[in-house]
Amino acid sequence: MAAAVASLYRRVLPSPPAVDFASPEGKRLFAEALSAGTMEGFFSLISCFQTQSEPAFCGLASLAVVLNALAIDPGRRWKGPWRWFDESMLDCCELLDKVKAQGITFGKVACLAHCSGAKVQSFRANRATINDFRSHLVRCVSSQDCHLIASYHRKPLQQTGTGHFSPIGGYHAGQDMALIFDGARFKYPPHWVPLPLP
Amino acid sequence: MAAAVASLYRRVLPSPPAVDFASPEGKRLFAEALSAGTMEGFFSLISCFQTQSEPAFCGLASLAVVLNALAIDPGRRWKGPWRWFDESMLDCCELLDKVKAQGITFGKVACLAHCSGAKVQSFRANRATINDFRSHLVRCVSSQDCHLIASYHRKPLQQTGTGHFSPIGGYHAGQDMALIFDGARFKYPPHWVPLPLP
Repeated sequence: MAAAVASLYRRVLPSPPAVDFASPEGKRLFAEALSAGTMEGFFSLISCFQTQSEPAFCGLASLAVVLNALAIDPGRRWKGPWRWFDESMLDCCELLDKVKAQGITFGKVACLAHCSGAKVQSFRANRATINDFRSHLVRCVSSQDCHLIASYHRKPLQQTGTGHFSPIGGYHAGQDMALIFDGARFKYPPHWVPLPLP
Repeated sequence: MAAAVASLYRRVLPSPPAVDFASPEGKRLFAEALSAGTMEGFFSLISCFQTQSEPAFCGLASLAVVLNALAIDPGRRWKGPWRWFDESMLDCCELLDKVKAQGITFGKVACLAHCSGAKVQSFRANRATINDFRSHLVRCVSSQDCHLIASYHRKPLQQTGTGHFSPIGGYHAGQDMALIFDGARFKYPPHWVPLPLP
């Protein structure tokens, strides 16, 4: 006999603090941020937004999305004749099997981004203020050639899970909220979160 | 000795007739359509937008994106504890190996959508006018609970390839253009196309 193992269809997004991207309030935030010019990076980013293919691949998926959004040529094939970044190709700084079992560290994601051909600037929360973070974020969301991947803990957002990586797809200055494109799309939809919280 | 086989990093999007989603003109069309209320389905759709995993999986990928966007529970596991539609799970109307080799017909995509739990209305171009198509499209892009998958030939768009399936993510009434979310993202980015053309 085998015990029944529960399976899940998504989780309810704890809101507040998050605001669902596709809710009326999420759409309002989006339209306002679009008008304000802080959604410039959004277009290329969501054109490449992808579901993470393994529960512990949030770092690799975030990076594959951003590398494709930046139109960086991986210089090797993905499938058929096509060159395109996929999580399975991000294997230069850490063994994929190890990432699959344990996830990946902040430093290794930065290493992978660098060795995949991106220009990387990394900022650690304990060595930067929220104002530093906000100014980097505003610079990225206001341009098309820069994307920001955040490494954060899900707990302050009242979400299940622990450490997580997600690309940030936009910023609403008036309400000081960032738009998180969570690669665990089978769990949570994209959502806006208050910047001071995570 | 083996002949070198060429590999490719994307194709240049023939423009016109298409307009790149992330270009200044594409962004203008987007902002105008958003204000006009014909981008309502966009939010849930791009939250689930995915790269097709095989060259001939455009029909399956379009369907997986739309089934997830409609929040239809597949009733069976994808990975880990999660229930989520993936192309590999769409195997009830046609053998996956056959789709991989030959692609899939319009009728089989409709069959798959139906047996996956969607309410399906299918319209064939030879039995409907462009005005019929436009009115169905406007109805879908103006709501969150309906999505349209188009089956079309790439040739009138001057694109390489032949028959293709893509979900439609929005409509610009003033310029009579539809926003195509092409699952072959390694080839073409999302783009606006004139409705009379395809």
